[in-house]
Formats: sequence, structure tokens, C-alpha cells
Amino acid sequence: MTAYDPNNIFAKILRGELPAHRVYEDDRALAFLDIMPRAPGHTLVIPKNPARNILDIDSDNLGYVATIAQRIARAQMQAFGADGITVQQFNESAGGQVVFHLHVHVIPRLDGVAMKPPASEMAKPEDLAAAAEKIRAALKNL
Amino acid sequence: MTAYDPNNIFAKILRGELPAHRVYEDDRALAFLDIMPRAPGHTLVIPKNPARNILDIDSDNLGYVATIAQRIARAQMQAFGADGITVQQFNESAGGQVVFHLHVHVIPRLDGVAMKPPASEMAKPEDLAAAAEKIRAALKNL
Repeated sequence: MTAYDPNNIFAKILRGELPAHRVYEDDRALAFLDIMPRAPGHTLVIPKNPARNILDIDSDNLGYVATIAQRIARAQMQAFGADGITVQQFNESAGGQVVFHLHVHVIPRLDGVAMKPPASEMAKPEDLAAAAEKIRAALKNL
Repeated sequence: MTAYDPNNIFAKILRGELPAHRVYEDDRALAFLDIMPRAPGHTLVIPKNPARNILDIDSDNLGYVATIAQRIARAQMQAFGADGITVQQFNESAGGQVVFHLHVHVIPRLDGVAMKPPASEMAKPEDLAAAAEKIRAALKNL
């Protein structure tokens, strides 16, 4: 497999070189909003350790990222009155991966509302800021 | 959230009341082929403990299921000469869930080959049996 590239944009977010609408952070994981959301509140959960995808991450960090994705999902249900959650995780270009630092998509869903196509539209910064605040508030109430 | 229904078809597979093309099993998780695969080798990983989806599963079992999904993904890369892996996990009807026992879709992908739509075509039993054997063999070589 191709080696991890430390100049991918999520590595830059982890290093603080690029901004992000952060909703959760601890010493092992970071969650922030996708700037081209497939639905409002679409969040990405990533490990802090470098890992290209599911094929090279160590199993401990993978399991940990899954539990943070779960917390985000529960918070999104409250924050957006969601009816369900779609979780996706893409590996290598053939698998749908675009940024090569492992990330889990956690997407709040409403009955009867289709997801937008991937990377179809950049969200407004004020909408992202409001959505991030809702998720942060819901996380405190879990 | 709706309570867990012990008569869902994956619970029946776990109890041996319905057949499945099993590729991996231990005391906490089972992996078997989706009979309507979105690509050849499409595998489902489920916890043995009853859990409706990501919203109610305990975090230990969720993390464990993620690590088994990882093993399946690695095996599929070898078994099918895959170029990537798409992982999906759906929660509640709005999130895309059809069977209400938590399951992780692990789907081998080839460059330039789109996934079939969900539940579009029942695979032939002999094709499923051959795909399951390939994954079981690859798991032994990991």
C-alpha cells in the first residue's frame, strides 16, 4: 500500500495549519465538520495517529475511532432531531477515498431526505459554525 | 429508540435458524456474505450480542466489530485482488438500515467498477460459496 502522506489536508488540520469546525477532540481522536456536507451536521472522525485507512491503522485506534463515531452519532440524533445515521468509511481511491488520512463519515439523516452527492456543494461558514455548536452542546448532554 | 427485535433475520442466522455463507466467527462476532452483494465478496460483520445499531450497542462490542471488519477488509484485498474497500453502516430506516441487528458492510472494490444498487440482485449460491472460500483462505494468510 502507498505510504502515509503527512501533507494530506487532515494532517494539516491536526497540526493546526488549516482551520476546521471542530466538534470533539481528545488525545487520540478529532471530529470536525465536512465542509461539503452530504446532509447538515455531516461530521468526520479521524485518529490523531497517522493512518492512511482501514488497511494500515492499528486495531486499537480503529476501535477507538469507532466509539467516537458512536458518540457523534448519538449527539447528532439530538442536535438535529435526526431519524437515523449513515456511517461510511472509504479506503483507497477505488473504495471512494479522497483524503488519505483515515476518516469515518457520520451523517445525520431525516426520513425521506436523500443525501446530496459527495463533494457537491461547499456549505456556508455560518451554517457550519451553527451546526458545530449544536453538536458540541448535544455531546455535553449525552 | 425501538427495542431490539430478536426475530430479525441476522438473529436467526446467529441462532442457526437460517443459513449463511460464513467467513469468520468467534465468541463475539460473525461475518458472512451479503446474499445481494453490491460487489463480489460483499461481507457483513455483526456482533453476537443483541444490538439494533450504533445508537444502542455497547462501545466495547462496537470497537470489536470494527476490528473484525478490518480483518475482513484486509482478507478481501488479497482474496479478490481488490483496489479498495468501501465500508458502510446504516442506522434506522432514515439512515438506510433494513435489518435491525447492527451490521457493518465491507465491500471489495475494483478501480472503475461501480457498486450495484442496494438489494438489486440475488447472487448465485455457488458464487457465494466460492467467494466465502476465498475470504476464509485469505484470513488464514493474514
